[in-house]
Amino acid sequence: MTSETGRIEAFSDGIFSIAATLLVLELKPPAASLPFWQGIAAQWPGYASFLLSFLFIGIMWISHHRLFSHIRRSDDALLGSNLLLLLGVVWIPYPTSLMAQAVGTPRFRDAAIFYNGSYLALALLFNLLLFTCVWRGLVDRDYSGVGNIVRQYVAGPALYLLCLAITWWNVPLSLAINGAIALSFLLSPDATPKCRANEGKSAR
Amino acid sequence: MTSETGRIEAFSDGIFSIAATLLVLELKPPAASLPFWQGIAAQWPGYASFLLSFLFIGIMWISHHRLFSHIRRSDDALLGSNLLLLLGVVWIPYPTSLMAQAVGTPRFRDAAIFYNGSYLALALLFNLLLFTCVWRGLVDRDYSGVGNIVRQYVAGPALYLLCLAITWWNVPLSLAINGAIALSFLLSPDATPKCRANEGKSAR
Amino acid sequence: MTSETGRIEAFSDGIFSIAATLLVLELKPPAASLPFWQGIAAQWPGYASFLLSFLFIGIMWISHHRLFSHIRRSDDALLGSNLLLLLGVVWIPYPTSLMAQAVGTPRFRDAAIFYNGSYLALALLFNLLLFTCVWRGLVDRDYSGVGNIVRQYVAGPALYLLCLAITWWNVPLSLAINGAIALSFLLSPDATPKCRANEGKSAR
Amino acid sequence: MTSETGRIEAFSDGIFSIAATLLVLELKPPAASLPFWQGIAAQWPGYASFLLSFLFIGIMWISHHRLFSHIRRSDDALLGSNLLLLLGVVWIPYPTSLMAQAVGTPRFRDAAIFYNGSYLALALLFNLLLFTCVWRGLVDRDYSGVGNIVRQYVAGPALYLLCLAITWWNVPLSLAINGAIALSFLLSPDATPKCRANEGKSAR
Repeated sequence: MTSETGRIEAFSDGIFSIAATLLVLELKPPAASLPFWQGIAAQWPGYASFLLSFLFIGIMWISHHRLFSHIRRSDDALLGSNLLLLLGVVWIPYPTSLMAQAVGTPRFRDAAIFYNGSYLALALLFNLLLFTCVWRGLVDRDYSGVGNIVRQYVAGPALYLLCLAITWWNVPLSLAINGAIALSFLLSPDATPKCRANEGKSAR
Repeated sequence: MTSETGRIEAFSDGIFSIAATLLVLELKPPAASLPFWQGIAAQWPGYASFLLSFLFIGIMWISHHRLFSHIRRSDDALLGSNLLLLLGVVWIPYPTSLMAQAVGTPRFRDAAIFYNGSYLALALLFNLLLFTCVWRGLVDRDYSGVGNIVRQYVAGPALYLLCLAITWWNVPLSLAINGAIALSFLLSPDATPKCRANEGKSAR
Repeated sequence: MTSETGRIEAFSDGIFSIAATLLVLELKPPAASLPFWQGIAAQWPGYASFLLSFLFIGIMWISHHRLFSHIRRSDDALLGSNLLLLLGVVWIPYPTSLMAQAVGTPRFRDAAIFYNGSYLALALLFNLLLFTCVWRGLVDRDYSGVGNIVRQYVAGPALYLLCLAITWWNVPLSLAINGAIALSFLLSPDATPKCRANEGKSAR
Repeated sequence: MTSETGRIEAFSDGIFSIAATLLVLELKPPAASLPFWQGIAAQWPGYASFLLSFLFIGIMWISHHRLFSHIRRSDDALLGSNLLLLLGVVWIPYPTSLMAQAVGTPRFRDAAIFYNGSYLALALLFNLLLFTCVWRGLVDRDYSGVGNIVRQYVAGPALYLLCLAITWWNVPLSLAINGAIALSFLLSPDATPKCRANEGKSAR
């Protein structure tokens, strides 16, 4: 194996891609009693739920990919904390589907609390993984960008906690903030276009 | 990792293979009230839907594989546009299953519009991915065949738009054209038997 | 990428592993009206169907793995014939589940014909893949064992045709023969314990 | 391929990750007749079942990963015994879901016997795989830690047999012991933090 972490990444990729794909099974054909396009339109919470889940899981995969491109060794603590993170990834479709069903019902706030709370838990699991890597010295020592990753990760739980607090005040705003946080993680922590820019430089 | 795009391909392979396999879950046993072979025959729209979805997703995987064999670096824009393409891939089983249910009903035209429209969107997402690669300079500079890939990709949205327009005039013809477009993508853009012909030449 | 066929194998591995796993979703809890162990026992056709599907798909994966360990290049014809084979692999859970439901009903013979016929089709698709590789010259030229693989593969359709013919005479015997054919494919065509024995020798 | 066992690991990773993810499909939305949080709370056996299955399968994957990091060659016997182990992995979600449904019913003891018995079978399959590797000489000869792995694996069936026997006496205690055994397998057999400690030493 060229990389000691290769098989951990392969297992993680499998989990991420299955979790991202499963929600398409929840998309049901529109009710036969409605005209076709009206039936399609009535299903929008299901489509929105599918879209959100897919993008969130995709963005989490990108974060995971970026972090692992700097991990050089694996140990038992990494295996354990990565497993807990993957548990969180697989969990996400469930609160998303609960929220899709609660749109337009009196349960909307409760479902959004459950949903935003799940993201807070996931942000904490990402931090657990990162600090395991730093604490055990598994990260590439040459890599000067670890500080950038740490800053981006540490901000996560704080932002999702704020998002959770806003849910009691304004549910749609809290969901919009949740989406905005995810999009902010799409940007590389190095704030450069290349995702492995630093490594590229040191190799030249 | 031997290739900088290796893990992007692994994640994409997972998504493609799950999306290709999921529709077998939609195949239901024939009704117990019919004689066995008559029940099997009555399920033909389900079988056709499974066959089409599988082949389309397989052909899209081949296109994706061909494109990535010429991508040498990855960056944030590639990660993002690849994620959008994968979203389109995972979506395809849904319009396919809607169309399978609409065969022989007054909803056939509407379902075909939804189906052909989804393919048009997917062709646009493939172009977004290709132009991201060209614009960011991620493609192998030695590769003379980029022009061939660009020509094949650019033709996609035009052909699917034509196909969508024909749906209002003749639904079965539009579906036949849709299938023919997919088969045309099975042929290598280089019109040579080897899928990585250029690399093969340079290695000799 | 170290091997030109690496990503074809990754996509195929994804399809094989999902197809092998999906049937566990068909296992239903035993009826609550029966005592626990009696309910478990009454589900035996479901368990047998799950076991058979898993082992058949696993053995097909082993055959695929053995063949690909001797393929050195890929081309469009290989991509196409591999895709058709994967279509057959994903199809297998469906006739298996039909047969599980037909146990002990008058439909048992018809379901077994459908089942054995599906295996005949799959054996033909395996031959299509092998002859594509030989015809296009994609197989390792140093490998003296190609003749052994060809002999094993060519026997497949003949044996499954016999198996299909026996179904009209004796259904349980035909199913036993079907299982025996699969187990015979578990043995390496080289009739040596090491699956890549030949390559091992040439490397020394 | 850099490693002769690379594709066996890829297929196994696919099976492990799908089996780990499938149970999220069993999580149903809480009953609409209950207040939201009360409905969530009433689903605890489903959540516990999902959590247990995921962690057990994850820990089995870690064990499999550790064993394969010391396997240098593959042969027919390895392919066959690995396939039997994967069959056991895919089976686990079924007894777990039966037990989740039996919580608080008179079937609890019977379901726990079925569940603990399945783990005993799986521990035996892990031993079959290990002894196949040792017997056929497939394990890294330099690796001094084989004795540690053998000790950990041999203890498995004995512990799960004890666990099964306790089920007749005290069901919750047997389940707690089952969980404790799994956690003990999370620790590396070398009792060192690095999972590939030996290889690390020889590389220095």
